[in-house]
Amino acid sequence: MEKIRVGLIGFGTVGSGLAQTLLSQRERLQQKVGLPIELSRVADINISELPAEYEDVALSSDAGDIFNDPEIDIVVELIGGTEPAKSFMLEAIKRGKHVITANKALLSTHGREIFKAAAAHQVEVGFEASVGGGIPVIKALKEGLVANRIEVIRGIMNGTANYILTMMTEHGTPFEEVLMDAQEKGFAEADPTYDVEGIDTAHKLAILMTIAYGQHVHLDDISVEGISSIKPIDIDFAKEFGYRIKLLAISRNHGDHVEARVHPTMVPQSSMLASINGSFNAIQITGDTVGDTLFYGHGAGMMPTGSAVAADVVDIARNIISASINRVPPLSYLPEKFTPPSITPMGELTCPYYFRVTVLDEPGVLSAISGILGKHGISIRSVLQKGEKAGKPVHVVLRAHMALESSVQKAVAEIDALDFCTEPTVMIRVLIDEY
Amino acid sequence: MEKIRVGLIGFGTVGSGLAQTLLSQRERLQQKVGLPIELSRVADINISELPAEYEDVALSSDAGDIFNDPEIDIVVELIGGTEPAKSFMLEAIKRGKHVITANKALLSTHGREIFKAAAAHQVEVGFEASVGGGIPVIKALKEGLVANRIEVIRGIMNGTANYILTMMTEHGTPFEEVLMDAQEKGFAEADPTYDVEGIDTAHKLAILMTIAYGQHVHLDDISVEGISSIKPIDIDFAKEFGYRIKLLAISRNHGDHVEARVHPTMVPQSSMLASINGSFNAIQITGDTVGDTLFYGHGAGMMPTGSAVAADVVDIARNIISASINRVPPLSYLPEKFTPPSITPMGELTCPYYFRVTVLDEPGVLSAISGILGKHGISIRSVLQKGEKAGKPVHVVLRAHMALESSVQKAVAEIDALDFCTEPTVMIRVLIDEY
Repeated sequence: MEKIRVGLIGFGTVGSGLAQTLLSQRERLQQKVGLPIELSRVADINISELPAEYEDVALSSDAGDIFNDPEIDIVVELIGGTEPAKSFMLEAIKRGKHVITANKALLSTHGREIFKAAAAHQVEVGFEASVGGGIPVIKALKEGLVANRIEVIRGIMNGTANYILTMMTEHGTPFEEVLMDAQEKGFAEADPTYDVEGIDTAHKLAILMTIAYGQHVHLDDISVEGISSIKPIDIDFAKEFGYRIKLLAISRNHGDHVEARVHPTMVPQSSMLASINGSFNAIQITGDTVGDTLFYGHGAGMMPTGSAVAADVVDIARNIISASINRVPPLSYLPEKFTPPSITPMGELTCPYYFRVTVLDEPGVLSAISGILGKHGISIRSVLQKGEKAGKPVHVVLRAHMALESSVQKAVAEIDALDFCTEPTVMIRVLIDEY
Repeated sequence: MEKIRVGLIGFGTVGSGLAQTLLSQRERLQQKVGLPIELSRVADINISELPAEYEDVALSSDAGDIFNDPEIDIVVELIGGTEPAKSFMLEAIKRGKHVITANKALLSTHGREIFKAAAAHQVEVGFEASVGGGIPVIKALKEGLVANRIEVIRGIMNGTANYILTMMTEHGTPFEEVLMDAQEKGFAEADPTYDVEGIDTAHKLAILMTIAYGQHVHLDDISVEGISSIKPIDIDFAKEFGYRIKLLAISRNHGDHVEARVHPTMVPQSSMLASINGSFNAIQITGDTVGDTLFYGHGAGMMPTGSAVAADVVDIARNIISASINRVPPLSYLPEKFTPPSITPMGELTCPYYFRVTVLDEPGVLSAISGILGKHGISIRSVLQKGEKAGKPVHVVLRAHMALESSVQKAVAEIDALDFCTEPTVMIRVLIDEY
């Protein structure tokens, strides 16, 4: 063996970040690995030429040229989406190529099929870049924290959503305005649904849970709410109460079942997660042996993601060189040790709650609302009323002590059905360390 | 091969943490590794019996019983100090045993000898627990961030010093009182010199720099100052200016030379490092590809350190099982790629400075001080005077713009030689992102 050869499908932002990383770090990687790691081929249907610095790299518009090249050891898929990404990966695996992807949507929905195929063909699947961008959190879970029962995973895993919430918090700008501005600056996608509605975060949580617990957690197992209904007024109230609103992925291990949820959360200002601003990501992992840990960095972007993909390339290159393929099981636990996922029903969650009820300012309003909450066993901690223009709706903000999610859902539905309610009630779960 | 056998020298706090981890995680580790990992022997001169749960583990008072046992694959040294720890490790290496240690004092002073011996005998050296306790930062530097030129390392790496500074900050208690209290509670050693004088932090920085840059950085290469001269009044001024005082390890890569220093530092309140409180550790690593990252967790303690040592055990076990010893070079770069360290002389550092000069309140004092600073090219940003009891010394607090360390050292010496100076001037370097 004289070198390790990499084929890349997709020369978009992350793909060109990987290419640039392999080029600029070429000598350093050889000083650490012992052999050159070479990008030999790129396939992309949108470009007709690679930048001048890649003169030795063959460009093709056919992904088949990558996975059919017998010289290529590792195929990196960076086109995103489900198809043709999935077919390309499976074709590469069938031909005995190791594969690397940053595709969390694909892994969290079709992961089982891909990992099964990889096991059958005894090839590696690298996916460090699928969660937390440049943060080496997958490796930390699989190796650094190997001797831990994972108790809690909590994280800010979507930079766009966190950027929007940060701007709303710092400047009081409404959601829609910040989003438009972010789209203009290229920080948010033209279709931001996955980012702002929590779906991208849920993809990532599914992957982390799968390796943390040895259970194939699917996107559909996760309860998901986004941030599009959060208003500056909620952020102001949160501040007043000593909180920041963050879109969190949360999983807690109860032994016989595990929580799996993504939703806007009131995070105590003293918590490290409250201070993660802008497009940064942070993943807090609590293990029974290690206690609390937190991993922080850029959750996306050309070069940070390139750093993570390149780390996978090196990991697999080392396994090729030392003939130790799948030295670490790709999903942390050996495939035969996986158990079926057992997800806590969302209705069984208990935590403190924040409610903002928008009502016409009529006599009896508060009595009706508090009556409904009381009927469902929800104990009120404080009530505030804001907005006093005659004839205009007012905001009644209530904070509840620990309550049961299913009761809260019922109560909110009843409150929203009241005649004087002018808008759907905003309900935000509050993070406390015990839940 | 039916199992991996571990021998442990030293059943103190960390040693018993490892034993407990290997016991409680036994099934989990087997589900991930495929073979049982067994603690077979313990050597300790201070105990005559192991706790009941270790009935299958042989206890001895002779470390030779560990490294002479032909069945043992991995020897873990957790006695600390230089000797006999070093001899035990070398004896184990000579007999072809893989070794693991948490001993930063040993590695930062005798590391070259140990790694050379390990290379000659083709065995592994695991040392994840030597820096950052349970935080998998060594693995992150060697593997997760492999495709990066490391630009900056900055960290809070000593829990005792950080605990003391946190207590001083939160309660205004003087250093000596907090230290005594910490000693009573068992948070600080009877001889706290290594912790409070920055030596332990420097040990850890030497290890991180060695793997980050591929240079054998020795403890003696690092400029070290501790926190024992910090007073509550400095902490109050820091707060007033928007800073927290933290004991930081700092290294910046200038290409042809690298900074290497440990000292109390004024950290902007907005920085994540400013919010690391109590005995927690955090290591910020900036790479040219990944940008800023931060790794946070318990920097010491029985179980967190046990988690890190157990991760090394698993790593080496996997290499034994897949016959891929030294798949990753122990110090990240291949031994033959190491270059001699080139450390920036401390005098060449430039940064903003804080000075607290304690003087008799006489006419001409400020003029004399500012004259000396001006003569050395140190430009004053602000001056404050506190303490106005007649006849008592007062504190003159000066903040300087970017200045050269060698000039600052000269100026401080001249100021301290002034007749009206009643105490040595306290000088604290200020962290800015550019330095």
